[in-house]
Amino acid sequence: MLTRIDHIGIACRDLSATIAFYESAFGLTLISQETNPEQGVREAMMQISDAPAGTSYVQLLEPLGPDTPVGRFLDRRGEGIHHVGYGVADITAALDAIGATGIRLLDARPRHGSMGATIAFLHPADVGGVLTELVQSAPHR
Amino acid sequence: MLTRIDHIGIACRDLSATIAFYESAFGLTLISQETNPEQGVREAMMQISDAPAGTSYVQLLEPLGPDTPVGRFLDRRGEGIHHVGYGVADITAALDAIGATGIRLLDARPRHGSMGATIAFLHPADVGGVLTELVQSAPHR
Repeated sequence: MLTRIDHIGIACRDLSATIAFYESAFGLTLISQETNPEQGVREAMMQISDAPAGTSYVQLLEPLGPDTPVGRFLDRRGEGIHHVGYGVADITAALDAIGATGIRLLDARPRHGSMGATIAFLHPADVGGVLTELVQSAPHR
Repeated sequence: MLTRIDHIGIACRDLSATIAFYESAFGLTLISQETNPEQGVREAMMQISDAPAGTSYVQLLEPLGPDTPVGRFLDRRGEGIHHVGYGVADITAALDAIGATGIRLLDARPRHGSMGATIAFLHPADVGGVLTELVQSAPHR
């Protein structure tokens, strides 16, 4: 069902500084930067590698304000890994299959994610404390 | 420098139950299980995908006791994502390059990791709160 680790999402306080850090320390390449008001974040996709199964990214997340999911995460835990995103070929089929196992879906229906992807989050309390995202990449990606 | 997301490491309280969960909920395959007394963990590597750049895994970590790094993590934060491991082609060269940027290394010299890999951890305080591992896979992997 899962085709790859699409990305890890990292919560940070200063997006520009963290982009510069991942460029200089690890040689990653910034390929997309966007604001997602629905999720309350500014985000950057930093490319790690290209492989036939799909590219993998470090996704950097800066909250738009303290009263957002990532803002509350920073307040509670500080900067660090926020979630993991797994690639899937068909997100609707994956959500049906996973929902049928009793895992609660934070998104009953898929919604828009980074770079034109279609995404959905699973409830971390049902996935051993791991905020888990499914990602069906945009066709052109 | 980084060739892929090699794995995400997930801290759990019950390794057997968590292996069974990732098998049934996400269709992952258990391919290795070992005890690493040096790191104070029992661990399982659950395979996600095969790609030319190397396989990616979910690594499940159960502490050998409360006074271990993962035991203290569970006590402080509960179950969840513990670290990320990135693939590198040459871990000695990567550590030299990263150390030269001023990032402190938890392991000045590489040591043994899962499945015969050679690994080293970077200090999370110098990587925006992210416990970051470098992984040079064993030749046969």
